[in-house]
Amino acid sequence: MKLNCDLGESFGCWTMGLDAQVMPHIDQANIACGFHGGDPLVMQKTLELAKKHQVSVGAHPGYPDLVGFGRRSLNCSQEEIIAMVKYQVAAIDGVAKSLGVALEYVKPHGALYNDMMAKANVREAILVALSSYHKPLKLMLQATPYIDEHKAQAKIFNIDILSEAFADRCYDDDGKLLSRTQEGAVHNREKMLAQVKQLKEHGSVTTISGNTLNLAADSLCVHGDNIEGVQAIEAIRELIG
Amino acid sequence: MKLNCDLGESFGCWTMGLDAQVMPHIDQANIACGFHGGDPLVMQKTLELAKKHQVSVGAHPGYPDLVGFGRRSLNCSQEEIIAMVKYQVAAIDGVAKSLGVALEYVKPHGALYNDMMAKANVREAILVALSSYHKPLKLMLQATPYIDEHKAQAKIFNIDILSEAFADRCYDDDGKLLSRTQEGAVHNREKMLAQVKQLKEHGSVTTISGNTLNLAADSLCVHGDNIEGVQAIEAIRELIG
Amino acid sequence: MKLNCDLGESFGCWTMGLDAQVMPHIDQANIACGFHGGDPLVMQKTLELAKKHQVSVGAHPGYPDLVGFGRRSLNCSQEEIIAMVKYQVAAIDGVAKSLGVALEYVKPHGALYNDMMAKANVREAILVALSSYHKPLKLMLQATPYIDEHKAQAKIFNIDILSEAFADRCYDDDGKLLSRTQEGAVHNREKMLAQVKQLKEHGSVTTISGNTLNLAADSLCVHGDNIEGVQAIEAIRELIG
Amino acid sequence: MKLNCDLGESFGCWTMGLDAQVMPHIDQANIACGFHGGDPLVMQKTLELAKKHQVSVGAHPGYPDLVGFGRRSLNCSQEEIIAMVKYQVAAIDGVAKSLGVALEYVKPHGALYNDMMAKANVREAILVALSSYHKPLKLMLQATPYIDEHKAQAKIFNIDILSEAFADRCYDDDGKLLSRTQEGAVHNREKMLAQVKQLKEHGSVTTISGNTLNLAADSLCVHGDNIEGVQAIEAIRELIG
Repeated sequence: MKLNCDLGESFGCWTMGLDAQVMPHIDQANIACGFHGGDPLVMQKTLELAKKHQVSVGAHPGYPDLVGFGRRSLNCSQEEIIAMVKYQVAAIDGVAKSLGVALEYVKPHGALYNDMMAKANVREAILVALSSYHKPLKLMLQATPYIDEHKAQAKIFNIDILSEAFADRCYDDDGKLLSRTQEGAVHNREKMLAQVKQLKEHGSVTTISGNTLNLAADSLCVHGDNIEGVQAIEAIRELIG
Repeated sequence: MKLNCDLGESFGCWTMGLDAQVMPHIDQANIACGFHGGDPLVMQKTLELAKKHQVSVGAHPGYPDLVGFGRRSLNCSQEEIIAMVKYQVAAIDGVAKSLGVALEYVKPHGALYNDMMAKANVREAILVALSSYHKPLKLMLQATPYIDEHKAQAKIFNIDILSEAFADRCYDDDGKLLSRTQEGAVHNREKMLAQVKQLKEHGSVTTISGNTLNLAADSLCVHGDNIEGVQAIEAIRELIG
Repeated sequence: MKLNCDLGESFGCWTMGLDAQVMPHIDQANIACGFHGGDPLVMQKTLELAKKHQVSVGAHPGYPDLVGFGRRSLNCSQEEIIAMVKYQVAAIDGVAKSLGVALEYVKPHGALYNDMMAKANVREAILVALSSYHKPLKLMLQATPYIDEHKAQAKIFNIDILSEAFADRCYDDDGKLLSRTQEGAVHNREKMLAQVKQLKEHGSVTTISGNTLNLAADSLCVHGDNIEGVQAIEAIRELIG
Repeated sequence: MKLNCDLGESFGCWTMGLDAQVMPHIDQANIACGFHGGDPLVMQKTLELAKKHQVSVGAHPGYPDLVGFGRRSLNCSQEEIIAMVKYQVAAIDGVAKSLGVALEYVKPHGALYNDMMAKANVREAILVALSSYHKPLKLMLQATPYIDEHKAQAKIFNIDILSEAFADRCYDDDGKLLSRTQEGAVHNREKMLAQVKQLKEHGSVTTISGNTLNLAADSLCVHGDNIEGVQAIEAIRELIG
């Protein structure tokens, strides 16, 4: 099981995330492409950092909403989503290739990620974007009970799926993350490590109602927003080896 | 001698230029990359149009200034220029490649073009951007008496130069275009065609002071903003064959 | 019954709408505030044009989505909507006042308008924004069978309502506009003028199913995107006096 | 002598500056207006914070360059500067008034500030913007040996001037700040406090060459970017009373 983290989300003079401290501990860097965060210079420096630590690089495209950090759903047409995803993927792919780094996958950001999970037409638009790109790229999405359905849809477009689970978030019986506004939505350190252990050893999580839910995850999503996040990443790294 | 034109500069709901009418008559399309004009959808459609008419495609990167249409000089560091040029070039290159179109050259837009011509450090930043890109791309710049100097600087970076002249603009003895605010800065139809003829047959222009100035131009820059522009392009096309 | 039109929606070098030809014929100008269209210079010039023709001025705030022209619903919090509406209203109010023009009302744009009509929480956020503004401003919304309910909600916030109907759009029995993708959604010239006449004389429209629907409208929304639009405005102006 | 500080420069999810820690110690808050930093929600919250601490509020307008944080000179026309300054001033003025806060002055940001100090035409454009605004606002600029000339120019437009000096920056004999790239450009704590004391007691600074330069400053510019900045502000506050 790999560790992936959203990085390169600083913008101009505004810093976000402890990228330099996170990069040594992860396997996959989801790097912002300038639409919800990141900018040409930040992107380049983040790619250089990933290269230095031999971390696999994914595009992290988002809705064009800087002030909302791509976290607000924007009701786009499929045509618009296809075009915005391809643009962002192409931008980071070319800059990465120039640095000797191969872009390997795409993980949509924020509201685009949520819409991809919730709406078949958004998921389809993203698959069309990737399948019409000039080189094969995997799509990272959330491991849920619907993963086989998602893989089947992706297969139509000849796209491989990477599934990810969340280390520190509590799941409901349907495989959805509890809303952050709900009691118990975010695990404390102990519960987080227990969830990681269970995911690693049994490919499952214990849901909010105490049930066991099978989740086959290729990767764990971790967060490096602050020093507690970095310490959690280090602890998870140690646990999963 | 080729004909090149700036295209793909519409933005969202705002249309600019008669791209569909211009494309059949030109050889090289300088396509906006989203920073001064254009957006992911406009870029894709313009690339498809260029493909249909077998027109060679160049990136047309600009300063990040939509409201000023990239026409206002922005005092950027070399590092910023390198990153913004590579980002824009990569974005259009990847989208073009996905459509089966090969990006061939880069022509900076507006104030970035003017700064490239006027300032060695801006020119150098653009050359660094291109030389560090993962595939060779030519740089289109203005044919002036300093073309040999510019070619020599480009050679250091292993970049080939495409030189362009302007069909409808009057030159001074130093090879600069007269400011549009000056009397006689823009030629009427007759003078424009005479200038094109002279460029084609003698590789020179007659300056505002009546002198002959040698200008070896690989391409002529034409404008398709309105129907008069399109008609001028058709007349020039007929003249140069 | 007044005529209102969206104006000032050009952006930088990109022109939209025949503002100068529309302004002499209308009573109320809904002027863009820079978030979905318009910019500081366009706003100022549009205000000067309204002043010249003694046209009443309304703020036309939108979602911050230039590339989508504010036509895509953006899932904002109430707090965000309140702040974005107040900012846009304040910007045009102060610039207008400096020109000796009094801002009189607010008509949200595009998706923000549609969300206001469809979602009580968006409507509430807009009412909070207006009620907390330092001077009274009316809110323009769509005349529907729910107008009394909307007026009652607005009254809680001490906000007066201006209701508008559409000259050229076909209504369904619920008072909604037919989607533009539906057959018969947009009236031809003859039907448009008949609808205007009926609205003026009887305060009603004939719906797609042939029923009569009462719509008490203070104002008619007209469009000046092109020369046909301007001619329609002139015909409507002549009809309603 | 007052203390002024740039505040409200966070943007969306990106935080900048320790505004809540700075506000209790200063007299004048220069609040960003959304063009180089700040957004409608950040602006509103910063105004509320200023109100709570009874801090005088100034508009802090900048060039429209978020990614460059308004620090890169943008070659605008006077007409563009007038419009962008009025728009930003109006936006914050109306929002402030709605909170019961009176906007009192304008201090341009970053490159717009530097251009105002260096170029008479930029200074003139800003003065035109303020003089055509519907209520009187003071202009804050840098105290230099040219202050009388600047006041005379402002008087033509009926604008009052507030002059500011810098606590922690070393001056040259011409009253310019040493570039941050130069040795000795930024004072250590001890030298900073000595400069503040000299400004307060003698209305002068000791320049890099050891000369005494008279600088009549109404206000001292301080910085709250980090905890050291906040501590420096507290020390200065204690010193000047």
